[in-house]
Amino acid sequence: MPYIPLEDHLPGITGLLEYRRDSAEPIRDLTHILMRGPSSLTEGERELIATVVSHHNDCKFCSSAHAAVTDLILGESNTASCVRQDIETAPVSEKMKALLTIAQLVQQSGKNVTADAIARAKKAGATDVEIHDTVLIAALFCLYNRYVDGLATVAPADPEFYKGLAKRIEKGYQRLPQGYDHLKK
Amino acid sequence: MPYIPLEDHLPGITGLLEYRRDSAEPIRDLTHILMRGPSSLTEGERELIATVVSHHNDCKFCSSAHAAVTDLILGESNTASCVRQDIETAPVSEKMKALLTIAQLVQQSGKNVTADAIARAKKAGATDVEIHDTVLIAALFCLYNRYVDGLATVAPADPEFYKGLAKRIEKGYQRLPQGYDHLKK
Repeated sequence: MPYIPLEDHLPGITGLLEYRRDSAEPIRDLTHILMRGPSSLTEGERELIATVVSHHNDCKFCSSAHAAVTDLILGESNTASCVRQDIETAPVSEKMKALLTIAQLVQQSGKNVTADAIARAKKAGATDVEIHDTVLIAALFCLYNRYVDGLATVAPADPEFYKGLAKRIEKGYQRLPQGYDHLKK
Repeated sequence: MPYIPLEDHLPGITGLLEYRRDSAEPIRDLTHILMRGPSSLTEGERELIATVVSHHNDCKFCSSAHAAVTDLILGESNTASCVRQDIETAPVSEKMKALLTIAQLVQQSGKNVTADAIARAKKAGATDVEIHDTVLIAALFCLYNRYVDGLATVAPADPEFYKGLAKRIEKGYQRLPQGYDHLKK
């Protein structure tokens, strides 16, 4: 039961983004730029960052949603599952292991990111912009996770909900003309 | 020494917002809407939320900057100082004590916000929108604090720097035509 009145058919972040549309717009724009804009990181790699951070913040809605988008983009569900269990043994590149480790440190605290963690990423070929974007994406999902759970929004239990949402998010984060009305049952 | 190349004359968030201007724009817009847009919370009250969250995230740059803005807006430095020490004994209203407590819980984790903390705020007269905005402002500063410290930006030691920045931020968070060039020494 959310702490503020949100529409019943809009769980998690979806109800919050409709609750205050003026503040939602730049949140959507920032997410769209970082997650779907031009980048040397693939959309799947960026969704893995969102998944790892949301998972370690124990945010069920965001973790389920971004794992579902990752699965949809990658065409398999093994990678997102493994990354949530253990970054080091997950089937991703050394560069992604280093970047996901940085994301996980940012999730704890910005101060936890070490020069060694950055050096590892650079040695594995990560560019400055990739490091910047990893930190900012991780920080953005720390915002989302706190927004979603701080107001006690509902996280549906049915995996089908997240598969449906993933189809929408795969295309981008900007508001559709009809908002989230298509999620109405 | 920042982990990515930032301009020497632009410490803390200022260099990051110039590093990637496309992602900076929605961050600025979101901050401006929440911190300077129409609200039943005063600008000083909203800056106190930013100060408390940044303080508990141990982010020196943001904590110093937003304490300086709060001081400038309130015309005294006692309130921001007291709020950082102990919300309950600080010279603010019962409603602000309740909202600052919610902000401090969001700083730890969205999941830490309790129904009791929300009930206290509502009993003290906080509206749903004020509760929403408190959670979102607190979440936004969890983003800022991680962005600023996760990339190891520089926090000037000189209090005069923050007083100068506060004069700029008091007017708003949107980018000036000249960016931060006026901070050049």
